[in-house]
Amino acid sequence: MSPTAGHAQYDQETEVTQGDDGRWHGHLSPRWNIGENPNGGYLLACALNAMARSVDHPDPLTVTTHFLRPGSPDAPFDVDVQVLRSGRSVSTVRATLAQQDKVRVEMLATFGDLEQNAGIDTELDPRPTYTLPPPPDCPLRSGQTQGLHLPIMDRLEVRLNPDHARAGESEDAVISGWIQFADGRAPDSLSLAMFADAFPPSLLTRLGVIGWVPTLELTVQVRRRPAPGWIQAEFHTADLQGGRMIESGMLWDQAGHLVAQSRQLGLVMRRDN
Amino acid sequence: MSPTAGHAQYDQETEVTQGDDGRWHGHLSPRWNIGENPNGGYLLACALNAMARSVDHPDPLTVTTHFLRPGSPDAPFDVDVQVLRSGRSVSTVRATLAQQDKVRVEMLATFGDLEQNAGIDTELDPRPTYTLPPPPDCPLRSGQTQGLHLPIMDRLEVRLNPDHARAGESEDAVISGWIQFADGRAPDSLSLAMFADAFPPSLLTRLGVIGWVPTLELTVQVRRRPAPGWIQAEFHTADLQGGRMIESGMLWDQAGHLVAQSRQLGLVMRRDN
Repeated sequence: MSPTAGHAQYDQETEVTQGDDGRWHGHLSPRWNIGENPNGGYLLACALNAMARSVDHPDPLTVTTHFLRPGSPDAPFDVDVQVLRSGRSVSTVRATLAQQDKVRVEMLATFGDLEQNAGIDTELDPRPTYTLPPPPDCPLRSGQTQGLHLPIMDRLEVRLNPDHARAGESEDAVISGWIQFADGRAPDSLSLAMFADAFPPSLLTRLGVIGWVPTLELTVQVRRRPAPGWIQAEFHTADLQGGRMIESGMLWDQAGHLVAQSRQLGLVMRRDN
Repeated sequence: MSPTAGHAQYDQETEVTQGDDGRWHGHLSPRWNIGENPNGGYLLACALNAMARSVDHPDPLTVTTHFLRPGSPDAPFDVDVQVLRSGRSVSTVRATLAQQDKVRVEMLATFGDLEQNAGIDTELDPRPTYTLPPPPDCPLRSGQTQGLHLPIMDRLEVRLNPDHARAGESEDAVISGWIQFADGRAPDSLSLAMFADAFPPSLLTRLGVIGWVPTLELTVQVRRRPAPGWIQAEFHTADLQGGRMIESGMLWDQAGHLVAQSRQLGLVMRRDN
């Protein structure tokens, strides 16, 4: 895949336009695929874009996404957005992304203004648990895994902690690393939820190569508008029951501030499932 | 307040009946109030009840609730439920609880069957971080706080870890304790989300008495059907920025298994706000 020229691949490829009926329309690019299917975070980003354009507040504070069916790549999509409440300090909004009249993702989010203080002044800003070497010392996440082609790795540059990158070598189920847009676009409060879905599953580092980890639900709380530059991320899984895992993540910006927390419910399937 | 006879206060007070138009109807009891307003977890429980009765799968796997406006106590409510997808292994459903045509809570949940294994057999079942004395050695959560009457504490018996119960005495922002229905009703997969909203804010133990911590969003993942008896809970807050906190919680049953994880986005206001 040859990269698109310019600095706005993500913006072009999540673009939505509003029809006369109020519905938003766009086209899923195949360049954000994991194998044959669009990455879930990319579907989320397209719908979140339509949500953001439907409210007055600039930042998503909390975004929950349920993944009902895989998306169809290189195909049009529609997003129905409903503003449930538009208040002074926050707006709550839901969205349904559909293709061929089948719901693919359903989302519920609250938007606000991260630059405005909403309560007390005390700050608690947790640091990463694990030491992470600088980006040049962390290997790139490969565009090939388990026989799958990952075009999304031409869009996102993901660098993995060498201490966490090897399957099944860690006592803890943890993965950490760096992420940025491959074309140099700066991160913003809208792109962090998508970043939180772009790393390999942290269980890999404890259980070894596992087959398929479909996400049922992902909730991301955005904590601060990120500074330009790399985003540092850390994900861990301590809870796996009945084939269902909870993975929690934290993302920091280059200035060292926590910018997002994430948590997902996923299924953990063997490769032959 | 005199307690209702029998063992089903919660079931009576979250009861919903379906109208001819498919809408669910019920009446909010003032017995679950925190001060003048119904507890958010109680609103959630009423709407979740309507959701559960609208799908074939028995257990909520993940439940996200956005709190848009306080509920009105001792007043009727309506719940609109929409099943977004009813699949073989899971169903995804949304609900809007309104009173006087104003949305109070909006919810998005996926239901499944926690007794069915959905993937690999490996189990990771994390234990509590802090030592918790047995229930008789943990003081009851008071039905009075900061001049507020808490009728809900006649419905739920909450016992707090004496090491965590005192305001502003802990280095960590953590609170732990026990919870059960006051009338002896057994916990189930549907009541855990409500339990996750019944403890004092964990920031209290680090910051001292704080005024008011309205929850914007609460997501609870249910991990296992609880055994009968006490539920043990642990909540911590490491992230407070711009007056907004993220509090994460874990709940275990009397058999020692993790039965739920929770995370909420809340505002942290001074008492005079």
